[in-house]
Amino acid sequence: MKTQKEYGITVKKGDNLSDWYSQVLLKTDLIDYGPSKGFIVLKPYGYSIWESVRQIIDIRLKESGHQNAYLPTVIPEGLLRKEEDHFSGFNSEVFWITKAGDNVLQEKLALRPTSEAIAYSLFSNWVGSYKDLPLKLNFWNSAMRAEIKSTKPFIRNSEFLWQEGHTVHTNNEEAEAEVRFILDLYEMILTDYLAIPVLKGFKTSKEKFVGAVATSTLEGMMPDGKALQLATSHNLGQNFSVPFEIKFLGNDNLEHFAWQTSWGISWRLIGASIMIHGDDHGLVLPPKIAPIQVVMVPIFKKDQANQNVVPRSMELASELVRAGIKVHVDTRDDFTAGWKYNDWEKKGVPLRINIGPKEILKGELEVVRRDTLQKETILQTSLVKRVKEILKLVHDNLLKNANEILRRSMAHASSFYQLKEMIQKQAGFVSGGWCGDEKCEISIKEETGADIRLLPFEWSKTLDSTMKCVYCGKNARSIPVFARAY
Amino acid sequence: MKTQKEYGITVKKGDNLSDWYSQVLLKTDLIDYGPSKGFIVLKPYGYSIWESVRQIIDIRLKESGHQNAYLPTVIPEGLLRKEEDHFSGFNSEVFWITKAGDNVLQEKLALRPTSEAIAYSLFSNWVGSYKDLPLKLNFWNSAMRAEIKSTKPFIRNSEFLWQEGHTVHTNNEEAEAEVRFILDLYEMILTDYLAIPVLKGFKTSKEKFVGAVATSTLEGMMPDGKALQLATSHNLGQNFSVPFEIKFLGNDNLEHFAWQTSWGISWRLIGASIMIHGDDHGLVLPPKIAPIQVVMVPIFKKDQANQNVVPRSMELASELVRAGIKVHVDTRDDFTAGWKYNDWEKKGVPLRINIGPKEILKGELEVVRRDTLQKETILQTSLVKRVKEILKLVHDNLLKNANEILRRSMAHASSFYQLKEMIQKQAGFVSGGWCGDEKCEISIKEETGADIRLLPFEWSKTLDSTMKCVYCGKNARSIPVFARAY
Repeated sequence: MKTQKEYGITVKKGDNLSDWYSQVLLKTDLIDYGPSKGFIVLKPYGYSIWESVRQIIDIRLKESGHQNAYLPTVIPEGLLRKEEDHFSGFNSEVFWITKAGDNVLQEKLALRPTSEAIAYSLFSNWVGSYKDLPLKLNFWNSAMRAEIKSTKPFIRNSEFLWQEGHTVHTNNEEAEAEVRFILDLYEMILTDYLAIPVLKGFKTSKEKFVGAVATSTLEGMMPDGKALQLATSHNLGQNFSVPFEIKFLGNDNLEHFAWQTSWGISWRLIGASIMIHGDDHGLVLPPKIAPIQVVMVPIFKKDQANQNVVPRSMELASELVRAGIKVHVDTRDDFTAGWKYNDWEKKGVPLRINIGPKEILKGELEVVRRDTLQKETILQTSLVKRVKEILKLVHDNLLKNANEILRRSMAHASSFYQLKEMIQKQAGFVSGGWCGDEKCEISIKEETGADIRLLPFEWSKTLDSTMKCVYCGKNARSIPVFARAY
Repeated sequence: MKTQKEYGITVKKGDNLSDWYSQVLLKTDLIDYGPSKGFIVLKPYGYSIWESVRQIIDIRLKESGHQNAYLPTVIPEGLLRKEEDHFSGFNSEVFWITKAGDNVLQEKLALRPTSEAIAYSLFSNWVGSYKDLPLKLNFWNSAMRAEIKSTKPFIRNSEFLWQEGHTVHTNNEEAEAEVRFILDLYEMILTDYLAIPVLKGFKTSKEKFVGAVATSTLEGMMPDGKALQLATSHNLGQNFSVPFEIKFLGNDNLEHFAWQTSWGISWRLIGASIMIHGDDHGLVLPPKIAPIQVVMVPIFKKDQANQNVVPRSMELASELVRAGIKVHVDTRDDFTAGWKYNDWEKKGVPLRINIGPKEILKGELEVVRRDTLQKETILQTSLVKRVKEILKLVHDNLLKNANEILRRSMAHASSFYQLKEMIQKQAGFVSGGWCGDEKCEISIKEETGADIRLLPFEWSKTLDSTMKCVYCGKNARSIPVFARAY
C-alpha cells in the first residue's frame, strides 16, 4: 500500500537541479522507477506527453514520405557483429538473452540497442532496383542499453522510447539531403513544440555514431550549464551497405552499393523540456505538448456543486473542446479550490481558469498563466479567442526564456586557460579554435571535463587564418563548441 | 540484393490454406521473416493495418476511462516468481537475459511474456485508498514468448504486438463487470471492424490464464475448421493482490485486498482476418481496417499522363479524402493498367476505381468491388455517396460470409463416437455434454485432438437434466464447445 509523502516540491530548482528534477517527476505522477536499475515506468500523465510528442513527429514523418514498420526486439549476435565498429561501440552495453525457459540458446540474442543491423539485413532483400529507392522507414520502439553510468529518468535509461529512422538512397547527395532534412525537422519540433532552442552542427570523428560517416546533432543547454544531446541524424555512407550487401541495379544497368542514413529522437526531449521550463512550484509544460492545456476549476461549496457553477463550466469547456483545445474540468468535491490550484500548478497545466458564482454573474472568467502565474480577467464571450492567444503567449515566453538561457551560456575562449576557467566558473557552451587533432580533443576533455559537443554549421564560417588551437597552439581548422554534458 | 520471385499467388486457398497464407503475407508486402526463428517483421503495409486496428481500440479504451502507460520490457526473476501458478505457466517460454556486455547479471531478467508481475509490483505503491480506484490502465507493447511449437505469422510468434489492460477495483462485482465490458468491446471490434464473428464464453479451469480465477474468451473459426482464440479477458480475483500486497483503505476505514482484471488482444486478429476473408487472388481487407480503402487507377498511355486523366483523378480523389476515405491514386507510368488491377487486387484494397478518357467524357466511373470482383458504373457526381455505400456493402458481405463459415462449422454431438467423427470429418466447433471432470477433458483431447475452446455464455442455458457427458456418460454439468485449434 502506498505511503503518504509530502505533497509539494520541497527542493528549489536553483538549489539542487537534480533533486528538484526527481521530485517533480515523481510528485506529478509522470513516472515511477521500475524494479530493475535504470528502468523507468511512464505513468498515464507522463505517457500522454509522449503520445503528444509521438503524434507530432509521426505526422511530419508521414507527410514527408516516411513509412512506419516494426522490427523484432532481438538481434542475433552474428548480425550485430557484421559491422565491426558498430558492434564494438555497443558491445559493452548490450543486454544478452542466453536462455529460453531452461534451454540455452545456440546463438545469443541481443536486445535492440538500435536497429541498424537487423534492418539492413532485411533491406538487402527488399532493395533490388533503383525503382525501389529511396526507401524511407521509421520505427517507433524502445531501445535497450545497459547503463553503467548513473542513470536519470528520460535523460539516461537502460530502456528508452524513441523513433529510429532508416533510409536507403541511390546516391550520397540524396542521403546528405535526407540527413539535413531530418535534423531541420527535429529542430522545428524542439523549438516550435517543446520551446527548446538548440545548437546545430556535426559531431567530431571521436563522438560520432559508431559506423557513421558523419553525425549531425542538436545540442541543448540545461539550467545547470550542462549540455544535452537532443537528436542526431547520421550519414552512414556505404559503411553498412557493403557488409550487409544492400545493392541496387541502377538505371545504368550496373549494380551499386546503396547510400544510407539513420536518425533518432527519444523521450529525452521530455526530460529536457521539464528541466528547462519547470520552476519551484513544479512542472511548466509547453502548451503544444501538454496533455491538459487548460484546466477549469469551478469554485463551489460542497452542496452547491450542481446548482450553477459546474454546469456552466462544462458548457464553456465544450466551447474549448470544439476549438481543438485539450481541457479538463476539475469537479472533485473532496478538495478545496485552493488545493486544486496548487495541484494543477504542480502538474504544469499551461492555463487555469477559475470560475465561481461571481464570475458567472458578471460573464467573466479569471485566467491564470502557469509560466508567469499572472492573472487576467476575460469575458466569457471571448473565451476561445483569448485562450488561444494566451496559449501562444505562454509558448513564446517559454521559448524566449530558454533562448535567454542558451544565449547567456555561450562564450568564446581564446586560450586554454580561458576555456578551462569558463567551463569551471560559468559552465555552458564555450567555443574555441581547434587544430582537428583527436589528441587535443582528448586532453581538453581530461583537463576540463568538457568535450566537443559539436562543430556548428554556422560558426565555422567565422574561422580566420590567425586563429589557433586553444590546446596546442597550431593553426585552428575549426571552431567547435565545448561543454560538460549529461 | 533481392531476387525476383513469381509475382502472383500460386496456391489456391482451398487446396492448402497454410501455403496460401504464407504466400499472401509475403507477396503483398505485409511481413517478412526476421533473422531469429519465430520472429516476424511488419513491413509498412502490414504495420499500417496494425496502426488502424490500434487506433480503433485505443479510442474505445480511452472513451471508457482507460489510460495508457508504459512498463519496462524486462522483469526481474524474483518478481515473476511471486505468483507461483503464473510463473510455472510461463516459465518454459520465457526469454532470459543473463548478461549485460560481458558482465553476468546478479539476477536474471525475463523479457515480458505479459506484464502482470511488474505492473502489480507497482500498483501496490500506487493504490492507497478506495479513492484511487478503479485504476484502469492499458499498455501497448510487445510480448515475448519463446515458441516451441511451429510458428505462424500473426497467429503464433515469439514476439507479438498487443495491448494488455490491467485494472484494479474495490469489489468483485465491479471487476466482473469490467471483464465483461472488455469482452463485449473486443467482440464489437472483431465484428464491426474486422468482419469476424466469434463465439463467447468461459475457458475451462485447465485452459484459463495462469493465475486467473476465470478467463472469458472470444473464439473464431478459420476456413480449415480449426478454431482460433482471438481475445481473452480475465477476472483475477484477489489471486495477485494478495502476493503483491495491493491493498486499499476502504470507506469503512479498514484495509482490503483489491480485485483485479487483465485482458488483451493482439495482432493475431489481423491473421484471422486474412485467413477468413482472403481468396485465390490474395488479400481481401475489411474496409474499416484497410490502409487504402479506395485505389484509383487512371488509364492513360505513357505520354498522355498529364493531359487530362491524372488531374481529374486527383480532383475526384480529394473529394474522397475530404469525406474521410483513405484513397490512393496509382500514377505509376511504368506499369500497365491491367498490371495495376492485379496488383491492387492482390493487396486486397476493398474498392478500385478505373478512370480513363471515356469515363471522363461521360462523367462516369467504373467501380470494382474486391470481395465480389463485381463491376458497376457510377456517376462522378455521386462518387462520395456511392463509395460510402459500397464500402458498407463490402463490410456487410464479408461479415455475412464469415458468419456462414461459422454457422456451417457448428454441430452438436450426442455421443463420443459422434464427437470424434465430426471432429475428424468436418472439423469445426462441436458441442457436447460434459460432466466437468478434467480427466474427461484430457481424454477427449488425447483421442480427438480437440480441446474445450469455451463454455458458451448462451448455450449453457439449453442444458437439461437428461444430458450426459459424451465421454464418461455421467450427468452433464455444461455443454462446452470442442474444436481443434491453432
